[in-house]
Amino acid sequence: MKLHEHEGLPSPRRVRIFLAEKGIEGVERIQVDVAAGAARGEAFLAKNPLGEVPVLELDDGSSISEVAAISRYFEAAQPEPPLFGTTAAEQATIEMWLRRIETGLMGGAAAYFHHATTGFGALETYQNKSWGEKSRDRALASLRLLDSQLAGRDFIAGESFSVADIAALCALDFAQAIDIEVPSELVRLHAWHERVSRRPSAAA
Amino acid sequence: MKLHEHEGLPSPRRVRIFLAEKGIEGVERIQVDVAAGAARGEAFLAKNPLGEVPVLELDDGSSISEVAAISRYFEAAQPEPPLFGTTAAEQATIEMWLRRIETGLMGGAAAYFHHATTGFGALETYQNKSWGEKSRDRALASLRLLDSQLAGRDFIAGESFSVADIAALCALDFAQAIDIEVPSELVRLHAWHERVSRRPSAAA
Repeated sequence: MKLHEHEGLPSPRRVRIFLAEKGIEGVERIQVDVAAGAARGEAFLAKNPLGEVPVLELDDGSSISEVAAISRYFEAAQPEPPLFGTTAAEQATIEMWLRRIETGLMGGAAAYFHHATTGFGALETYQNKSWGEKSRDRALASLRLLDSQLAGRDFIAGESFSVADIAALCALDFAQAIDIEVPSELVRLHAWHERVSRRPSAAA
Repeated sequence: MKLHEHEGLPSPRRVRIFLAEKGIEGVERIQVDVAAGAARGEAFLAKNPLGEVPVLELDDGSSISEVAAISRYFEAAQPEPPLFGTTAAEQATIEMWLRRIETGLMGGAAAYFHHATTGFGALETYQNKSWGEKSRDRALASLRLLDSQLAGRDFIAGESFSVADIAALCALDFAQAIDIEVPSELVRLHAWHERVSRRPSAAA
């Protein structure tokens, strides 16, 4: 099994943290130089026609892309500890927050990066600065929503650490790296960020 | 249990088809007049701060939004027939195609609707026509990817009908309703569309 990824990007980091939380070892990691266009080459497009990392290459040669799909693969292959919830209500709540984080915080920050900053440079063949700035607002609104959700909670989507926390951690660190600052008044979010950043998996 | 939805929109339709395929009855349906702004009112925002349908209100008063999350709730509550796959590879493949359809076809068509058409009229407080047109291209690319995936397959993500087929059906019908035509040369996609449209659930 091989994980095609890029150490500096938030989506592959989600997979690494997921594997660390599960205690799954032995997945070979192959670095793809995304900023240099390596994910747009013919060999890589055969694994993922969308030209994005991460991609999990299974031993039968088939490929799984999309972080959520790769995570589901490992959740099914090794259910413990559950990171997508157990009961119907837990699973639904975690999935709901995962989607909110991906669309709001991560989607907003990524669109800001690609449209309102230099992004991947020459690889950015279409940029729309107004859309990038508007997307930054969406990321900030998502940060506020997460702060409000964390009232009285240690984790975003229930009693336990879940994929929602993983997605939010990677998205938040990415947002900060591209100068989307977390407003200082979001004290619950700051406390959560310190807490989850201390987990050994955060360094994966 | 109550489903807050809107009959004319593609996302609530995904939930109705999901329930029909599962044979789940007895979920009360409440229509929310989204185009008139009813999803942005205080009462509705308490159920979903993002102001979007569908929302599943559980008997304990808690609310689940996001189609994928609502679908997960029912998949866990009633596993048969499985619509998210069974084995790890099946689950991952279905999730991968679900994400591709949501980001590409549905996301592209929705952005075209909100930014390059009149959309929801006065509710559209920010429109970016260039982004809307670019998003239409993304929807069309997604249609081509689906056509190629359907070579030798009856369903999008495996041997069986799954949530990927449901998402693609609702997104494709929505795209056509806003004048994004499926190119005639995509014959496999057209054949698949006829096939899944004949299922009784498609009328749900």
